Amino acid sequence: MTDLSSLHDAVARTGAPAVPPVALSADDTAVALTAVEHTPAAEVFADRHIGPRGEETLRMLATVGYDSMDALVDAAVPASIRTGRELDLPEARSEEDVLAALRGIADRNQVLTSMIGQGYYDTVTPAVIRRNVLESPAWYTAYTPYQPEISQGRLEALLNFQTMVTDLTGLDIANASLLDEATAVAEAVALMWRGQKNKPGTVVLDAELFGQSLAVTVGRAEAIGLPVVVADLTDGLPEVEGTLLGVVVQQVGASGLVRDLGPVVAQAKERGALVTVASDLLALTVVRTPGELGADIAVGSAQRFGVPLFGGGPHAAFMAVRNGLERSLPGRLVGVSVDADGARAYRLALQTREQHIRREKATSNICTAQALLAIVASMYAVYHGPDGLRAIARRVHGHARSVAMVLTEVGVTVEHATFFDTVRAVVPGKAAEVVRAAAGLGVNLWAPDADHVQVACDERTRTDHVLAVVLAFAQAGTTRLEADEDGDFAFGFVGASDVDGPSEALPEALRRSTPFLQHPVFHLHRSETAMLRYLRRLSDKDLALDRTMIPLGSCTMKLNATVEMEAISWPEFAAIHPYAPADQTQGYAELVTELQDWLAEITGYAAVSVQPNGGSQGEFAGLLAIHAYHRSRGEERDICLIPASAHGTNAASAALAGLRVVVVATAPDGSIDLDDLRAKLDQHGPQVAAIMITYPSTHGVYEEGVRTVCDLVHDAGGQVYIDGANLNALVGLARPGEIGGDVSHLNLHKTFCIPHGGGGPGVGPVAVAEHLAPFLPGDPTPTGDATTSAVAPVSAAPWGSAGILPISWAYVALMGPDGLRAATETAVLAANYLATRLAPHFPILYTGPNGLVAHECILDLRDLTKETGVTAEDVAKRLMDYGFHAPTLSFPVAGTLMVEPTESEDLGELDRFVDALVAVRAEIDAVAAGRWAVEDSPLRHAPHTAASVATDVWDKPYGRELAAFPVASLREGKYWPPVRRIDGARGDRNLICSCPPVEAFAE
Amino acid sequence: MTDLSSLHDAVARTGAPAVPPVALSADDTAVALTAVEHTPAAEVFADRHIGPRGEETLRMLATVGYDSMDALVDAAVPASIRTGRELDLPEARSEEDVLAALRGIADRNQVLTSMIGQGYYDTVTPAVIRRNVLESPAWYTAYTPYQPEISQGRLEALLNFQTMVTDLTGLDIANASLLDEATAVAEAVALMWRGQKNKPGTVVLDAELFGQSLAVTVGRAEAIGLPVVVADLTDGLPEVEGTLLGVVVQQVGASGLVRDLGPVVAQAKERGALVTVASDLLALTVVRTPGELGADIAVGSAQRFGVPLFGGGPHAAFMAVRNGLERSLPGRLVGVSVDADGARAYRLALQTREQHIRREKATSNICTAQALLAIVASMYAVYHGPDGLRAIARRVHGHARSVAMVLTEVGVTVEHATFFDTVRAVVPGKAAEVVRAAAGLGVNLWAPDADHVQVACDERTRTDHVLAVVLAFAQAGTTRLEADEDGDFAFGFVGASDVDGPSEALPEALRRSTPFLQHPVFHLHRSETAMLRYLRRLSDKDLALDRTMIPLGSCTMKLNATVEMEAISWPEFAAIHPYAPADQTQGYAELVTELQDWLAEITGYAAVSVQPNGGSQGEFAGLLAIHAYHRSRGEERDICLIPASAHGTNAASAALAGLRVVVVATAPDGSIDLDDLRAKLDQHGPQVAAIMITYPSTHGVYEEGVRTVCDLVHDAGGQVYIDGANLNALVGLARPGEIGGDVSHLNLHKTFCIPHGGGGPGVGPVAVAEHLAPFLPGDPTPTGDATTSAVAPVSAAPWGSAGILPISWAYVALMGPDGLRAATETAVLAANYLATRLAPHFPILYTGPNGLVAHECILDLRDLTKETGVTAEDVAKRLMDYGFHAPTLSFPVAGTLMVEPTESEDLGELDRFVDALVAVRAEIDAVAAGRWAVEDSPLRHAPHTAASVATDVWDKPYGRELAAFPVASLREGKYWPPVRRIDGARGDRNLICSCPPVEAFAE
Repeated sequence: MTDLSSLHDAVARTGAPAVPPVALSADDTAVALTAVEHTPAAEVFADRHIGPRGEETLRMLATVGYDSMDALVDAAVPASIRTGRELDLPEARSEEDVLAALRGIADRNQVLTSMIGQGYYDTVTPAVIRRNVLESPAWYTAYTPYQPEISQGRLEALLNFQTMVTDLTGLDIANASLLDEATAVAEAVALMWRGQKNKPGTVVLDAELFGQSLAVTVGRAEAIGLPVVVADLTDGLPEVEGTLLGVVVQQVGASGLVRDLGPVVAQAKERGALVTVASDLLALTVVRTPGELGADIAVGSAQRFGVPLFGGGPHAAFMAVRNGLERSLPGRLVGVSVDADGARAYRLALQTREQHIRREKATSNICTAQALLAIVASMYAVYHGPDGLRAIARRVHGHARSVAMVLTEVGVTVEHATFFDTVRAVVPGKAAEVVRAAAGLGVNLWAPDADHVQVACDERTRTDHVLAVVLAFAQAGTTRLEADEDGDFAFGFVGASDVDGPSEALPEALRRSTPFLQHPVFHLHRSETAMLRYLRRLSDKDLALDRTMIPLGSCTMKLNATVEMEAISWPEFAAIHPYAPADQTQGYAELVTELQDWLAEITGYAAVSVQPNGGSQGEFAGLLAIHAYHRSRGEERDICLIPASAHGTNAASAALAGLRVVVVATAPDGSIDLDDLRAKLDQHGPQVAAIMITYPSTHGVYEEGVRTVCDLVHDAGGQVYIDGANLNALVGLARPGEIGGDVSHLNLHKTFCIPHGGGGPGVGPVAVAEHLAPFLPGDPTPTGDATTSAVAPVSAAPWGSAGILPISWAYVALMGPDGLRAATETAVLAANYLATRLAPHFPILYTGPNGLVAHECILDLRDLTKETGVTAEDVAKRLMDYGFHAPTLSFPVAGTLMVEPTESEDLGELDRFVDALVAVRAEIDAVAAGRWAVEDSPLRHAPHTAASVATDVWDKPYGRELAAFPVASLREGKYWPPVRRIDGARGDRNLICSCPPVEAFAE
Repeated sequence: MTDLSSLHDAVARTGAPAVPPVALSADDTAVALTAVEHTPAAEVFADRHIGPRGEETLRMLATVGYDSMDALVDAAVPASIRTGRELDLPEARSEEDVLAALRGIADRNQVLTSMIGQGYYDTVTPAVIRRNVLESPAWYTAYTPYQPEISQGRLEALLNFQTMVTDLTGLDIANASLLDEATAVAEAVALMWRGQKNKPGTVVLDAELFGQSLAVTVGRAEAIGLPVVVADLTDGLPEVEGTLLGVVVQQVGASGLVRDLGPVVAQAKERGALVTVASDLLALTVVRTPGELGADIAVGSAQRFGVPLFGGGPHAAFMAVRNGLERSLPGRLVGVSVDADGARAYRLALQTREQHIRREKATSNICTAQALLAIVASMYAVYHGPDGLRAIARRVHGHARSVAMVLTEVGVTVEHATFFDTVRAVVPGKAAEVVRAAAGLGVNLWAPDADHVQVACDERTRTDHVLAVVLAFAQAGTTRLEADEDGDFAFGFVGASDVDGPSEALPEALRRSTPFLQHPVFHLHRSETAMLRYLRRLSDKDLALDRTMIPLGSCTMKLNATVEMEAISWPEFAAIHPYAPADQTQGYAELVTELQDWLAEITGYAAVSVQPNGGSQGEFAGLLAIHAYHRSRGEERDICLIPASAHGTNAASAALAGLRVVVVATAPDGSIDLDDLRAKLDQHGPQVAAIMITYPSTHGVYEEGVRTVCDLVHDAGGQVYIDGANLNALVGLARPGEIGGDVSHLNLHKTFCIPHGGGGPGVGPVAVAEHLAPFLPGDPTPTGDATTSAVAPVSAAPWGSAGILPISWAYVALMGPDGLRAATETAVLAANYLATRLAPHFPILYTGPNGLVAHECILDLRDLTKETGVTAEDVAKRLMDYGFHAPTLSFPVAGTLMVEPTESEDLGELDRFVDALVAVRAEIDAVAAGRWAVEDSPLRHAPHTAASVATDVWDKPYGRELAAFPVASLREGKYWPPVRRIDGARGDRNLICSCPPVEAFAE
């Protein structure tokens, strides 16, 4: 050891921390060097994530009336719920370090060529779409298009998706995406039941359905008490108990078999049943459509249209139905209507079907869709057009034929004579060996059992993969080929890969003869230049976080940092099949485990599952866990208490979990009415399975009485479900698991920075206390331990939307415990700053302790509406003219606007928002003063398009400049809504849910 | 071998190619599998790159009057120049394959931590800037901001750059980027000479200048006959022959030394010399500024402000000058002016300084700048702000102090007591060993000679790097540390890395005390959300290729495909220091060699150098080669013939290469006047070094007589320089080297898809015939073979802008020989289609064989201007209202517009452009008919901003709708120019070249 006194002196002078001397080993340098690293990170990421700078924070505190953040937090958050324990998470890391750590995790995943199939196929995401949709903030930071005037771009893209699905399935109306194919099948079963007016009876499920579809669907059916039978349909439909309600058949079977489904469909129809066909969009370019087969419903996944495998998700699933079923269709539906000037405009149609209206009468709890992925899939179709898609399908089929031909040639039995992309080989007792040999050659195959191996071809399959497959069979000794002394196998090979024309594997009777994708949109954007401009033009029509604050109460539209987003495009995360062997997915396992542990620490629960791929699925999983827990103790409890102010999804999820909903009243101050709760518990005590509450409440308030609520329900033997929608007001300050919750779901797309993607993807992990841990969702993998799990899986893939989990992992790693807590505190400060500044202009509906709100506040427009006729909707639309996305409209209280600024907005943007609302209030006052009639005011005519203010003739009682540039800062760069206010009712009356004909464009 | 007859039969039926049977070895599967790959690529990239689809092409041909592409090409391109040999290049590959191939090349580069320094330092590009500038088409596909009304976003970013440079250097005016630091030093020398009115005399260059700066500057000075002396300035300025014109000193020396430059500057001033300080922007946050030192000029590189190492480039260099020198400043200068409504507006100032006006009187030939990189650097400063930059500088300095302290402690002599980031250690005879040991530990150090090792710290340096450095010195046996029996070294270590406060290494006298970056722009965008929105807001103001055709004649604005762009962000290309050892840069070597070979094949030359990092540098290198060649044969030829229609850069480059320009007249048909050429050759024959011609000519015509021109010049003993600006009309059809050229430069940012980046980067390889190959640019590397090269280097880095060469490599690999030829043919077709359709409305100025143009055409507005007063500029500005970028204005002929559509625009966009020009012509006719006075016409008032058409009072004689929506398609999505027509003259009179004070924003 050298004398370091002089160095220590030098350091002591400057106050740098002393680090103990270390011995460096030349052999083990990397480790030794890392161990002594002590330089502080160059950048504190939290300073980039959190909007207000230090001095701005002080000014905001002063406005609210506090001199420190601690003082504000102490005043706002009841001591009774505060945690006594800091977050025990790794310290914050720099962007560089987190990217490096993710790189390390990624490197522990192994990317092989996937020929597993089973609903997941490798595909080429065109680079122009990857960069300009998946990696473009303009697309991924957008919110769900509930405000259609600022969402025309993504609505058009989603309408393209619907058109693509209806064209390919041959049905009449398609929705704009479901969460995954397995839940889509489950939704179809529910829809068929509904279509049969919920009659008693049975639904038959084709044994050829993918394993994950069966696992999820059977679980969902069981929860609502609907009998289902899984049957081999080779010899037709089985007899069932009671009425045959419906049949689900898989067009390209799990075994690869493609059958003529005509007879089964006819049989089902004869027996009065509805028919769902689970299909494959690529196959549909060459095989007969469900519509032609007579199906009522088609479902499937759009993944192989350019969406990466992502380790299982997120992927967009679809559902299409024949006319007559559209009003029962779950999920979002884009429709065509007109705006106030009569111009064509898109909007979400039939929103009354949605869960937030139907509540406990809902038969689906779907809220989040997979908008971003549906958009990618739709653009893939736009870019390739019908001819391009057909060419890909033919190539895929050609490769499959090659596999079948060569395997047959070398003596392997191929089970099915007719197939599209998947070949099933019979290898008695040797399946595992073949799979192992193939993996050694860089290819993953699928062994459904010990005696069969399946080879699924996809867009990336090439002749060398075909060769590797054959070689693997040979190496495993399943062929009649013999190795020479070097271990080589000599065999000839001729690719049939680009074969068009007749194929015995797809005889004429199975072939599609109808055209598809004839709309110009599928023909106009075929050069990369044209595609790039189309993507830009659409995104320019929309307002996303990259242009403005999106102050949506309950939606937590915060920064989606670039560094959080980057890893999801890496092949080591993006190109992994969900059923890849565990030894190839060590990185994912590590990431998932660590994230689950972190989320458990943050929420104060014992265990977390990231499987639910939307908040709705998380809720469903949580309620299933509660239900199963009670049953495991021999208790049949089936009542779920839900406060009147709850999000509609709560009630819908409860219904789907087989629970009856009993509503608990809201007290005048917005909190849960404890007297009513006691009354309901008295009445239903032994039947009460759970109460579902949200904390802070959906009113944006930290309710003081939450522990009492929990105690009362626990005392009655019920469980407490705390909806994690508002977790952004708790992280680092309080834990739902400590407050009294037994289970919560989180919305990683809210608190944990997964972008909203224009309406999905979301991730909704479920977090549970120790006693509920055995009841977390089971494994949906066909060869997994689904049968051994206490509870059914809720998503198609074991880790749900694994591919986007790096985003939330990165967020927690970047922020560290202090950053996370600071984010929460700043979110609370920002909401209170807005409430304080806006209160003189708009009453704040509910407040909690000390007159403070939590992380959001409700502006009560109802009195103003009464006095002036100006509605909350008018204000929401008028804010668009000011360049802002509207706050949450009429939730949780009709006639109000709920504002949530989040921690990411800096003071400049908060002040611009206040300025806008103050100016709007002045406009309302002008209406009150009689300056304008409300129906001819800038509020009611809002939003104003550029065309509407640049007309030659102007007939409004206010000026064009007031219409377009009500505040001066808009002149520095204004967002122009592309359409004026949209006539929703007309759109619902005249339902058009696919691309309008070209003539419509000429209007 | 198995019997494959049935397979062969199956294949024979369908026409697939038969592949010979192969033996697959289990041991060597990968190779065997790749070898038999024969599946055709799924996607033909050329179909994505080329705009018109098959049927559209036929319609376009029909319009032009031909029934096949071959017929058109035969008619348009003189047989005398057609090549008889197809391109001998690898067949086209798919996007996937090219990405995989690039991945393979990248993997042969090795990324070590760079502590080499010498003007290149590792840096962190903030992810939000990487994704939203470097990887955003809105920024990288933009053109140079010659049309300021549609360029306000990038002009603001570049003004920020200028403000940053003037603030940090303490000088008055800075330009918006030069090509690299070495050429910036050379430009400074030329400017000082100019500033001394080109007096005879000598310039002294500090021996502490980076080696590459010395190599390039000495070469440039020699070419113009300016004496320079390289001197050690330790004891003051040396005596020189004649007047001391100027002195260049390096503030942070190549050896790491930071001196008090005050005395040297004072001495120089006393002797009447001008002083240039080469400085370092990061150091300038803590050391005294050149301005305070009394310097006239400061130069340097902005690379370490967030721009990747890129293997040497592209990086933005800068130059700042004191007041009085601004009109001599080379490169682009952004200035502030006002628009027609009096609103603040940015524009390029003092454009008359530019080469395209000064021609042979030019003293700089700079044309392309490094706009995209300057924007990245400016945004880095905006994001970090002054405090963030200072913190980074302090950390860097702290690490350097740690290195010096620990090395001293363990017995290594550190040469300089004062330094910023670079520590120079004395290791007699052991330098190579230390460098080797460090590389073994993952760190590259710099050994300027056998006895010294330098360690340069940067933003990425951490304590573990400091430890590795010490360990390397210990392993090389240069310390007094002794290894224990395991080979370990025990030593203590205390980091001084985050030390602030006094540092003996930077004593008070050297320290900066003045504030900087006080403008609000460096304080407002510090959260990622705010930064993201600022980037979006700026880019939204601009028109780039992602929104519209940019029909700029001579600029070839074609698709910059995403897949071509992707690899440049990979660390294996981006994080390589240009002086990294050759064994770490095998990938780059392979890429460069292959690209140079391909370009040689395409141009018909023997050898290519990619070193020139702009077309201007390529020209200069080509002329240096010619000059050196003549000299090598004992001939002193110093006249360069240049046709009157030539691009101004030609003449400027000739002047810089020490050649006198003699202009050759243009014949009435636009071609070179052969009689005048003969006359000039008669007059100057023995002095004629070269003729510089462009082919097709700058008039966009395939001149029939080009071979005659070449023959005449060759007969006179001269060389033929063919400017490659218009190579997009030749690739695959003809080769400059076959037509008679001896040398050409290419613009990879035109023909080979490097995006224009809003005004750079460019790459201008020089291609030469066999006899000129020995005269290609030398190696600028300090330890390279610069001294052995026949010709001086022209750029700072051996491979110039190596980091973006993957783009052009990818383009050639993707297109293959057929694709490249098809692109050329389509470009010619598109130009002729436009010419045919526009001719009835605007006369086409020049045509070639059969009345056809080449790849561009000139619309002659002069008669219309005479008749109506409507100018070509009016039309250019009015096209902005139609959503188009203006064509090239008044080049090569004043009063005209030159239109080049390129092959990437599809028929829809071409037709929209025609429709716009036809509508504009109707507007001109209305002026002619007296409907509007020209000065009150929509043409003269163009462009119209949204604010200008949404005013409450409208005083124009035409309607608002005509102003804003002259064609209906604009209502589907309109680009709004953010300012109206800009008053250029006023801006030049009142020169403001840094961010205007905040009060200016209040206007």
